[in-house]
Amino acid sequence: MAERRHDLYLLTPGPLTVSPEVKAEMLRDRSPGAAEHVGITAEIRRYLLEICNGTDTHECIPVQGSATFAIEAGYHTLVPKDGKLLVIQNGWYGIRLREVAEAIRMNVAVLELPMLPLPTAADVEAAIDADPAITHIVMCHVDTGTGVLNPVAEIAEVAKRRGRRLMIDAVAAFGGFDLDVAALDLEAVFISPNKCLESVPGLGIAIVKRSSLEAAEGRSPSGVLDLHAQWKFFQEKGWWRTTPPTHVVAALGKAIERHKREGGCAPRLARYTRNWRRLVDGMRQRGFRTLLPDDVAAPIIATFMDPTDPNYSFPKFYAAMEKRGLVIFAGRLTAAGTFRIGCMGDIVESDITFVLETIDEALAEIGVSPTAPDPEKKGGAIAA
Amino acid sequence: MAERRHDLYLLTPGPLTVSPEVKAEMLRDRSPGAAEHVGITAEIRRYLLEICNGTDTHECIPVQGSATFAIEAGYHTLVPKDGKLLVIQNGWYGIRLREVAEAIRMNVAVLELPMLPLPTAADVEAAIDADPAITHIVMCHVDTGTGVLNPVAEIAEVAKRRGRRLMIDAVAAFGGFDLDVAALDLEAVFISPNKCLESVPGLGIAIVKRSSLEAAEGRSPSGVLDLHAQWKFFQEKGWWRTTPPTHVVAALGKAIERHKREGGCAPRLARYTRNWRRLVDGMRQRGFRTLLPDDVAAPIIATFMDPTDPNYSFPKFYAAMEKRGLVIFAGRLTAAGTFRIGCMGDIVESDITFVLETIDEALAEIGVSPTAPDPEKKGGAIAA
Repeated sequence: MAERRHDLYLLTPGPLTVSPEVKAEMLRDRSPGAAEHVGITAEIRRYLLEICNGTDTHECIPVQGSATFAIEAGYHTLVPKDGKLLVIQNGWYGIRLREVAEAIRMNVAVLELPMLPLPTAADVEAAIDADPAITHIVMCHVDTGTGVLNPVAEIAEVAKRRGRRLMIDAVAAFGGFDLDVAALDLEAVFISPNKCLESVPGLGIAIVKRSSLEAAEGRSPSGVLDLHAQWKFFQEKGWWRTTPPTHVVAALGKAIERHKREGGCAPRLARYTRNWRRLVDGMRQRGFRTLLPDDVAAPIIATFMDPTDPNYSFPKFYAAMEKRGLVIFAGRLTAAGTFRIGCMGDIVESDITFVLETIDEALAEIGVSPTAPDPEKKGGAIAA
Repeated sequence: MAERRHDLYLLTPGPLTVSPEVKAEMLRDRSPGAAEHVGITAEIRRYLLEICNGTDTHECIPVQGSATFAIEAGYHTLVPKDGKLLVIQNGWYGIRLREVAEAIRMNVAVLELPMLPLPTAADVEAAIDADPAITHIVMCHVDTGTGVLNPVAEIAEVAKRRGRRLMIDAVAAFGGFDLDVAALDLEAVFISPNKCLESVPGLGIAIVKRSSLEAAEGRSPSGVLDLHAQWKFFQEKGWWRTTPPTHVVAALGKAIERHKREGGCAPRLARYTRNWRRLVDGMRQRGFRTLLPDDVAAPIIATFMDPTDPNYSFPKFYAAMEKRGLVIFAGRLTAAGTFRIGCMGDIVESDITFVLETIDEALAEIGVSPTAPDPEKKGGAIAA
């Protein structure tokens, strides 16, 4: 067997397998107002802006909770009461973006699209033509419900041309996929610390266009989910407006150090791509088929069709993997009959070899034979 | 010197000095939907209800973020649009309770009282008489801005008699001070994991009367701050509605084990009381005076008047303490000219001896002489 580097592998869309170095930061208590924690917070805010080219134009505002909290805060803070949000919905997290908007009773229009083909400029143009009241647009960057990588630049170009403000749910993508918030003139980007940034959950982060933020004072009907108030407080005091998850913040500080050390987004995505390539090739050799063609798949998670072997059931497969310390993920309703394996986190190619070997063991245990080789791959022999 | 048990002492109202055993739980990643994390969440919810006698009548709903998130979620979920909230404001956290209500644009009445004497039934009766539209009342249990312990039972009795629903901000008190939510018929209690429960920050928790919760479906104008939806999801699935701070949740699971092992609320409060007694006596021996008389002071934090020595300034004292690894806290605006030292956390009497010895060093360094012994204490000699 390949070397096992972690006791537990979370091969999911996140929370994921976090480096021991990052988790060790949580062994220390810190006072939120003391210089150490203020410094960690400042460096997180600075670096996240830097890697999306937002230093001159945008602000970085962490919010306690999770990415969904940052998304709701973004909606509350940035979209006026008489505004209208167009949700581009072509997967599970598109549905989530719509649900958050509906829960807070925004004016919402939904551009409901199939998983594929990818959303196009023409789709969005048509939606705006059909409903000129639309002021804001929101779309996922990578929808980890399926693994689809959406065309942000193309949609940003339409938004700009038509004078609509684009918000991107880059929760799963940020820290891996490049995103230039200044060039794309994005209104907001919503981020999670526990995906490509490889830290622990407990926060959401919003990157917001500074001029839009400045115009948003007093707009949010929430106290804690008010990005303007949260931002102002960081600017004036340096510490958090209400108690931050100090251990989680410190972990993110260390995760950002590791991101720098790895060389930033490009080398990180290259590592994930090697993981993903190894995983997809290995699974195809075992007869599995992917939900998506490779050219629209984000190399951070892979979605596989359930085997046709009558002995197979996802709960049995999941249990056989889990007892070996590997957590995989069911498919979403938007992609029924599938399961997912993530490639993000403190994972390298040798870990994927270990994953594939464990899959062989688990399938043998539940009596599932590798099915016929995927016809798309020539010479896809069954690996030993 | 007395033994130093922690590298860093957070002698604050929280986040505070957390046991290494609790923090070590954060060295493991957990999948939010897997049995282990589901079990930890269930036990937290069960135990917190048990220790406030809420098992038959109430529900426990953790919320990502911080205690303020749980308070805002409680307001959103429990107070109808045409309801009106009376805030009993006799300290810093009373102001915070009002600010949260104002931020979400509730109908608010404020019963503004001095720090002392304590709020009385008659005060609340008069406020209700003056504004019969009041439907809900909120008050702090312990206001750590000053250290005042408010008379919850007395106010609960009025609320019950006058048919108003009482919510208690027990953020600083829960896990130490007894609170019987069934006997007091409380509408809601808001809790922090990082005070008397001695865990790390990253969550807020609401204990809510079950019948009120059942009547609250669809009321909250927030998605993530909707206690009904959060509760329903826990009931139906067992896991969290959106990504939880898994490491923080696991730490709280361990902190709850420690709470049980210590014997529950009474022995924990007894330990804090020993800490507080040792601290207050030691400080009085050094010539310091407390803001509060002992009979209204909650023995989890002590507020001291600044020394009159012209060499004294809080920033200098703070810095001299901080460089020795002890973080103390400034006074709040509601109690200017004071500083605070917390007794909560993984702290025992010998730690307080160490704290007092360090205070002697710090004061000597900044050239502050112990002032005259407190006249309230006979024979208050200056300790060596």
